[in-house]
Amino acid sequence: MFKILKEDKKTKAKLGVLKTTHGDIQTPVFMPCGTRGTVKTTTPDELRDLGVQILLGNTYHLYMRPGDKEIKGFGGLHDFMKWNGPILTDSGGYQVFSLGKGKDSLVKIKEDGVEFRSHLDGSKHFFTPEKVIDIQRNLGSDIMMVLDECAPYPCTKDYAKEAMGRTHSWAEKSIKYFQKSIGAGRDLPKIFGIIQGSTYKDLREESAKFITSLPFDGIAIGGVSVGEEKEETYKVIDWLSPILNKKSKIKNKKYGVASRPIYLMGVGTPEDILEAVERGVDMFDCVLPTRLARHGSVWIHPVGARYAAPKTGNRISLLNAKYKDDKKVIMPGCQCYACKNGFSRGYIHHLLKENEILGVRLTTLHNLHFILDLMSKIRENIEKGAFSTFKKQFLKNWKI
Amino acid sequence: MFKILKEDKKTKAKLGVLKTTHGDIQTPVFMPCGTRGTVKTTTPDELRDLGVQILLGNTYHLYMRPGDKEIKGFGGLHDFMKWNGPILTDSGGYQVFSLGKGKDSLVKIKEDGVEFRSHLDGSKHFFTPEKVIDIQRNLGSDIMMVLDECAPYPCTKDYAKEAMGRTHSWAEKSIKYFQKSIGAGRDLPKIFGIIQGSTYKDLREESAKFITSLPFDGIAIGGVSVGEEKEETYKVIDWLSPILNKKSKIKNKKYGVASRPIYLMGVGTPEDILEAVERGVDMFDCVLPTRLARHGSVWIHPVGARYAAPKTGNRISLLNAKYKDDKKVIMPGCQCYACKNGFSRGYIHHLLKENEILGVRLTTLHNLHFILDLMSKIRENIEKGAFSTFKKQFLKNWKI
Repeated sequence: MFKILKEDKKTKAKLGVLKTTHGDIQTPVFMPCGTRGTVKTTTPDELRDLGVQILLGNTYHLYMRPGDKEIKGFGGLHDFMKWNGPILTDSGGYQVFSLGKGKDSLVKIKEDGVEFRSHLDGSKHFFTPEKVIDIQRNLGSDIMMVLDECAPYPCTKDYAKEAMGRTHSWAEKSIKYFQKSIGAGRDLPKIFGIIQGSTYKDLREESAKFITSLPFDGIAIGGVSVGEEKEETYKVIDWLSPILNKKSKIKNKKYGVASRPIYLMGVGTPEDILEAVERGVDMFDCVLPTRLARHGSVWIHPVGARYAAPKTGNRISLLNAKYKDDKKVIMPGCQCYACKNGFSRGYIHHLLKENEILGVRLTTLHNLHFILDLMSKIRENIEKGAFSTFKKQFLKNWKI
Repeated sequence: MFKILKEDKKTKAKLGVLKTTHGDIQTPVFMPCGTRGTVKTTTPDELRDLGVQILLGNTYHLYMRPGDKEIKGFGGLHDFMKWNGPILTDSGGYQVFSLGKGKDSLVKIKEDGVEFRSHLDGSKHFFTPEKVIDIQRNLGSDIMMVLDECAPYPCTKDYAKEAMGRTHSWAEKSIKYFQKSIGAGRDLPKIFGIIQGSTYKDLREESAKFITSLPFDGIAIGGVSVGEEKEETYKVIDWLSPILNKKSKIKNKKYGVASRPIYLMGVGTPEDILEAVERGVDMFDCVLPTRLARHGSVWIHPVGARYAAPKTGNRISLLNAKYKDDKKVIMPGCQCYACKNGFSRGYIHHLLKENEILGVRLTTLHNLHFILDLMSKIRENIEKGAFSTFKKQFLKNWKI
């Protein structure tokens, strides 16, 4: 189901294609977050026009409202939201832990799962590895994620080890239940395992060995971007990189899995993506493009010689008064809907100030285009063997 | 500039074409409100796809923020918001009076204009007939409205008469200043006069006679839909209808105005529009389609035999829990973006509940399509001499 098309000679960057029931995905790929059954502000048509290949759906939110069974009644998440491309769903575990943060009594971690209260109405719920698979099946997910425990940051080694133990035990239960209840095959949903182990090298390595030993269709790196420094994230990927690259190429006779994509969960920024692709990561998801857009922030970058490098950094807040009279588009030369149609920074500033929805629509389309365009340039450059040069050039003009 | 193409035999309904610098408008026409330089939630492309012929821009809001001079700096409102079709701007007077309501001390009506305080920062401003023309010229309006005093409802006859007197004096000053500073001609902006007189027949008739005696390019009926009963609105139009129809056909040798469109300001609902078209009105504007949409309300109506007449009325609130599991589109058979693409009432209910912007986008597109489609059916039916039958059929299945 995952085929490596080309490997970069200088780095671990690779070009691949991941087959799913709803279509093929060219990797490295960025998955916008369709948290509550919509990528905030956009229509599915706009996502297709942007070149979005796959969306992420949030199991926790959709389970809470409108409910996974209700969505099943609509023919699944694809039919519900009218997105006919692939969808990856998370397990909901991350939200259980992060929304319960600081209210420890509301989240009870047990050997067979996690008990928590709804952030909406306080009702009690219990997620087990099996239950989150059932929920994701109701949603009609193309790629399911296993239930894991994403330990907080910072975290003692003892706790990290304990959480990792549970994550491994849940991973085994997950794959067992998945195979029993869903099976394996080209036209069936896929399931990805998740590596944990916090910022401890030996734990991360142990987790990588364990998770890759199970017949998952893909391997995810969890628990990064939870508050640690960027360098720490890169270090974690560096530790895992050799193991993952080796393991991902191992032919597994029993399950016929030739190679498996590596998915770095919750990442990220353009610079993080470039660093991670270099280290062998194939898949990314992040709320950043849409969240920044909602706050009026947009990414800009000198593309070729089309305009001069910004002196003020690559992320500007259009809410800033200095853009009030700015007649330029967000990023001259950019082919996003907002820039292509000539909407000025000054106009978008005005819309954002007035809380007019069109403002956030335009910044969202721009940021999504920016990150998807980056992915497409990454793929082009791996294809022509120029990834390292491209990365260097991009980062040279990148200061956030 | 306004040509009557066909007159209905049974009623005063008429088909016309109004020429402006930014294109021709087929009447009867509905103008969506682009209050702050955007028709809420939509892009100009979406408006074009909907068949919008002309937008209304609010002078008061745009004067306050970002400022008419700032907009002029962007090349005018058309360039600022990237709408290349015609734009009608109001005078700002209506907002001055309605936003100052209940705070009488903040609005001081004088013989030469009106003094008021900004609803944003309390700063003091003074609008005169001349100043609002200058502002509208800065905005680059295709059709300007004169400053008038829209008396509140209910209103004593004495006050109505006093306000009408000022409105008339301002109308004279307006046309004088307009001709001096802008002139008259095919490629120049047009200016419309406004009839006032509250709910008093003799005042309305006097106002109609006075305003139509001035060389305006169009005649507006102001001060309706300010709180009175529907029947009262229809009565006002009935009083004016004979005068307007007669006057609108008079050839004015001096200014070459052959006939003038009648614009009923701030109206309205589908039923109001049908009643007014029957009485000879050509132009309408109203925030209703977009405002209802923001509150989750959508219009539905049996179109031909494509689906059964709704039993629950023609305006439904998709926020109502009973639509949670509704798999139907808003209005089966409807060709709006939301219905055509199969977004279910249940999905839109979910989006609205979660405050997801896509929800309001879809209800807005539906309501705008509904009203624009009604206008297009009205024009078709006047064309084929079937307006009365169409109106009867539509209203038979219409209960709000």
